[in-house]
Amino acid sequence: MADAAFRSFGSDNNSGASPEIIEAIAAANSGSAIGYGDDPWTEKAEARFAEVFGEGSRTFMVLNGTGSNVLALSLASGHGQAVLCAEGAHIAVDETGAAEATVGCKVLPLATRDGKLQAEALSEALQVLGSVHQAQPSCLSLSQPTEVGTLYTPAEMRELIDIAHRAGLRVHMDGARIANAAVALGLDLAGVSSALGVDLLSFGGMKNGVAFGEALVVFDPELAGRAPFLRKALLQLDSKMRFISAQYEAYLSQNLWKRNATAANAAARRLASRLERMQGLELAYPVQANALFARLPPPAIDRLRAKYFFYDWEGGLVRWMTSFDTTDEDVERFADAVAAALAGS
Amino acid sequence: MADAAFRSFGSDNNSGASPEIIEAIAAANSGSAIGYGDDPWTEKAEARFAEVFGEGSRTFMVLNGTGSNVLALSLASGHGQAVLCAEGAHIAVDETGAAEATVGCKVLPLATRDGKLQAEALSEALQVLGSVHQAQPSCLSLSQPTEVGTLYTPAEMRELIDIAHRAGLRVHMDGARIANAAVALGLDLAGVSSALGVDLLSFGGMKNGVAFGEALVVFDPELAGRAPFLRKALLQLDSKMRFISAQYEAYLSQNLWKRNATAANAAARRLASRLERMQGLELAYPVQANALFARLPPPAIDRLRAKYFFYDWEGGLVRWMTSFDTTDEDVERFADAVAAALAGS
Amino acid sequence: MADAAFRSFGSDNNSGASPEIIEAIAAANSGSAIGYGDDPWTEKAEARFAEVFGEGSRTFMVLNGTGSNVLALSLASGHGQAVLCAEGAHIAVDETGAAEATVGCKVLPLATRDGKLQAEALSEALQVLGSVHQAQPSCLSLSQPTEVGTLYTPAEMRELIDIAHRAGLRVHMDGARIANAAVALGLDLAGVSSALGVDLLSFGGMKNGVAFGEALVVFDPELAGRAPFLRKALLQLDSKMRFISAQYEAYLSQNLWKRNATAANAAARRLASRLERMQGLELAYPVQANALFARLPPPAIDRLRAKYFFYDWEGGLVRWMTSFDTTDEDVERFADAVAAALAGS
Amino acid sequence: MADAAFRSFGSDNNSGASPEIIEAIAAANSGSAIGYGDDPWTEKAEARFAEVFGEGSRTFMVLNGTGSNVLALSLASGHGQAVLCAEGAHIAVDETGAAEATVGCKVLPLATRDGKLQAEALSEALQVLGSVHQAQPSCLSLSQPTEVGTLYTPAEMRELIDIAHRAGLRVHMDGARIANAAVALGLDLAGVSSALGVDLLSFGGMKNGVAFGEALVVFDPELAGRAPFLRKALLQLDSKMRFISAQYEAYLSQNLWKRNATAANAAARRLASRLERMQGLELAYPVQANALFARLPPPAIDRLRAKYFFYDWEGGLVRWMTSFDTTDEDVERFADAVAAALAGS
Repeated sequence: MADAAFRSFGSDNNSGASPEIIEAIAAANSGSAIGYGDDPWTEKAEARFAEVFGEGSRTFMVLNGTGSNVLALSLASGHGQAVLCAEGAHIAVDETGAAEATVGCKVLPLATRDGKLQAEALSEALQVLGSVHQAQPSCLSLSQPTEVGTLYTPAEMRELIDIAHRAGLRVHMDGARIANAAVALGLDLAGVSSALGVDLLSFGGMKNGVAFGEALVVFDPELAGRAPFLRKALLQLDSKMRFISAQYEAYLSQNLWKRNATAANAAARRLASRLERMQGLELAYPVQANALFARLPPPAIDRLRAKYFFYDWEGGLVRWMTSFDTTDEDVERFADAVAAALAGS
Repeated sequence: MADAAFRSFGSDNNSGASPEIIEAIAAANSGSAIGYGDDPWTEKAEARFAEVFGEGSRTFMVLNGTGSNVLALSLASGHGQAVLCAEGAHIAVDETGAAEATVGCKVLPLATRDGKLQAEALSEALQVLGSVHQAQPSCLSLSQPTEVGTLYTPAEMRELIDIAHRAGLRVHMDGARIANAAVALGLDLAGVSSALGVDLLSFGGMKNGVAFGEALVVFDPELAGRAPFLRKALLQLDSKMRFISAQYEAYLSQNLWKRNATAANAAARRLASRLERMQGLELAYPVQANALFARLPPPAIDRLRAKYFFYDWEGGLVRWMTSFDTTDEDVERFADAVAAALAGS
Repeated sequence: MADAAFRSFGSDNNSGASPEIIEAIAAANSGSAIGYGDDPWTEKAEARFAEVFGEGSRTFMVLNGTGSNVLALSLASGHGQAVLCAEGAHIAVDETGAAEATVGCKVLPLATRDGKLQAEALSEALQVLGSVHQAQPSCLSLSQPTEVGTLYTPAEMRELIDIAHRAGLRVHMDGARIANAAVALGLDLAGVSSALGVDLLSFGGMKNGVAFGEALVVFDPELAGRAPFLRKALLQLDSKMRFISAQYEAYLSQNLWKRNATAANAAARRLASRLERMQGLELAYPVQANALFARLPPPAIDRLRAKYFFYDWEGGLVRWMTSFDTTDEDVERFADAVAAALAGS
Repeated sequence: MADAAFRSFGSDNNSGASPEIIEAIAAANSGSAIGYGDDPWTEKAEARFAEVFGEGSRTFMVLNGTGSNVLALSLASGHGQAVLCAEGAHIAVDETGAAEATVGCKVLPLATRDGKLQAEALSEALQVLGSVHQAQPSCLSLSQPTEVGTLYTPAEMRELIDIAHRAGLRVHMDGARIANAAVALGLDLAGVSSALGVDLLSFGGMKNGVAFGEALVVFDPELAGRAPFLRKALLQLDSKMRFISAQYEAYLSQNLWKRNATAANAAARRLASRLERMQGLELAYPVQANALFARLPPPAIDRLRAKYFFYDWEGGLVRWMTSFDTTDEDVERFADAVAAALAGS
């Protein structure tokens, strides 16, 4: 069907799944198991998550990333309340108003630098607390890495989280690419999330080799109580959950998260180092995880697009992403194509 | 992990997936493909659905059954409006208020006989049309088979649909088990749905051998326009859609729907014929698809439950279901266990 | 404009306002005052409510009865949760799905006797607590008097409230006609509500002589915290609140609530005693407040309707209501008209 | 109670009502009338609106300004859709997330100049049309005058409306102060709204001498169909509607709208001409209606605030408003107080 030799730089979700993931799915297809999560695969996956994030955490398998984000927000926000996030955050601009439609909260984007929400902007946004005429901030949502592929340092995360907590807000981390962040920062999965004070974590695997399904990890026991019910009400409860759980069990126990993210990040760095040497092309942000945002002449974009699928971004930028299965050869071939496009062919 | 030799009669979602389905997933794990449905597997699956349901239909892959139902209702109902359904309908009693939470409509259960909504009750419910104080019926939702495993005859369906259409309502069919219905009625998939006037079909495969994902089929082009956007806003858009689409392509093109449903229904009939001969046990409804509802003494229920997982139902009933992979031996073993439980051991 | 001599028996909201209420509005039209409730009239009205319901209570002026109910429910329910109420409750059948549309909860009507929710039905409905597939009951809503004009005894109220509280639910009282209930039971306003354990009270005045605006009284301080914000988000915050507050100040301090409800109830009893002696007419429920539900031959209904406006009710009943300004003469004239209609003229 | 001699410059809703409005309320307190709008006062008020806005328009009395806005948006937007507006628009920043909570749409603020949404920003925002990942713009909402008291010229309005209509959006006008706009532009009420292509008009009176209640005027018959039901579902249906309708009948038939707005605007101009001559104070926007935004030293603000209540605004500004009952003497006294505050006393 698709050209198996062709490697997209359009998005890390353009890749398939790691072979181990497919094997885990196949292995889970064995015998009867109670639906909706009362099955041994889910028990095992939840135990793995507890190993990773601590016994106080609770993990809920969900169906996709938007579902994970919305379920998190539904635990920390609601009518008359606001979720604060960086401008450009996925929950603000890429989820078709899902939070507004299904949680009914306001999503309030704040000013950023290099895609990172600024402490000053956060503090200013909190000044509406107590005013009955403004939606009350009840949750801070941080994407790590950001939507433009940059990383908050642990100190930056901590500062923002502390400001939010002191004002009574909960903190959600959109970890659609948490593995890329952890690898890039040289930390483990807890080190980039719960250890910094995050209350709710959208734990993504689909952009890093999982075939389907994501997980929501809740660190605040008070918030976890309503999660099982809201998971169903918000359309995120899988009947044959074993097929999701088995993937995540493999993903964690076989360290696929680390192996895959390491590969994706390395490919991004390799590509960046090629691009940085090209005339007529500028990288818009530091390349810290697996995304690259470039500015190049529109005719060059058109020429490249004839060969590769990728997305335009605000401000005339284009986005390229590497993935867990991007090979060195893929990178070289793509870099050559960019160079050719710039050169006019 | 789970005892592969053990066969649950708790629900048809306690089964795994057909081997062909797992093979389709594995085969789809090949190369890069654009996310969110712009991939060749989805194109092929959509083409299969168009063969089955006609060129005017449009099919949207979604993530689960509740998601499929809610997406359908969001196209045909909204604030200040009501969805009419049978009492006991899945959307009314088994989805944790998902429709109210995410569509904001009222779900109004109406009186039934043998699980089937009655025309008279429907007509009476329509009398509020035009009154500003009552949520306005805008959609009729019919489950086929019903939640108690009975079947509307085509004539019964048509009568209800005609009443609804004449009053300006749209008609949704919850076809979580549409294959079982079609096989039992000796009709094809369109014959039990679009041919009878259904506007929106939740097309289920997960209870009949699919591993994950369902489909919403929209027959009314006017309703289809908003579906792509609401699919995302209602948390039902899969990024790696190929893994769902590939399953449904196999499900339809290899006639798995028919083979699997035929097996499940046959197993139910076989079990029914054993049960009907037992003293102290009564089947509450005609066994027309793959569900059996039984009344038996509570001590016997307890004894059986020590060996088998199954659900209690309203009115002191218990529900047993057969599945696509229920074997004759499974049936005999389960029937023996029921007989033993009735006999006090 | 309208025939000032004509007195409707269609609803107690067909009456205008008590003269003292209009005077209070006129008196409040004096000078500048800060909007949204920071005005001296609101301060005074809130103080009156605190005298009536205790210092721990907090009162929020709102715009209408449905707004009051919905604001209450928004404090005690939400997505994935259910509000339990009597079948026929205003929130279930007369508010155009407002709770579903703006709170997103499920409204679950339970079986009644004489319009009163039965303890057994309540207990049964609570059995879904803990099941992820069912909307979780989080609030019990009781109308006093009921929609059919009957009254829970204090003991009946207390029993239901205790069952609800033991299961962790909050209790809302739809007191659209609380004054009629208090007068009929010989209790004060707190005696029929907070003294029995009610957590949230929709305190109605518009059906008893107030021109516009209602009040929500919150007895549980934990629930009150979000009320000011949700009042605005749910469209219930009045900018020139003084005009509502001034009415309620007068309503309470001048005991209009008692005077008016006493008159309305007395008129209902007078009418009932006339009707009870008529052939061919049957009162469907005990007349305990100011509503009467009658069964009489359809042709008689038609004849009466030619002279008087009133509403049909389920089951072939008609509803008649008396009001604070219904005079003895009004009652006699209406009773004569009923008698004539029954007699065929 | 409040000091009748004191005149606030905090907001035009700090004023009471015109005497004619109170008289209209008192006069409407006569006899029985059917509730919920089937009364002669409402009939007459609706007829007045039809005279003003044309026979094709339909008017719905509602309870407050936020209710009017939200009801309008509910007719033109919904889940997965976006309402575009100026940054700082009331629906975006002053309604506690009401639109998100009760309509479920996204509210998307766009860049402005002098408070006015710019055509370029609008066109750019429309580029997401067709993308399933972004909330789809379905409505443009324009405030006239803007939140900073400036006015779109008719040509500017028309340009924006044309862009919106060509893209398939509906256009809502937040006319909370429509009378001030019409008077300032020398146009009639239709001239600033329906004549320019507006589809839905929040017609405000409460900031211009009405005691309570507002109106929604729908110019597009297709949109009007659901309005009666959504008005109830969105908590905006008044039972004793006569008391609102009578006010608007007087407001229109006695030309109170024009008289009052003329007075308020003139007071603003008078105040502006005093302020413009002061050292150390700068007016941030042209004074075109009845709002003034000033920049002055914080200590001066503090000194003035000791005598007058008013609101701080973004960017260190303060807002002062004149009202229909602001007298020349009020203006001089306030201007003197500002001058004194600037002078340090």
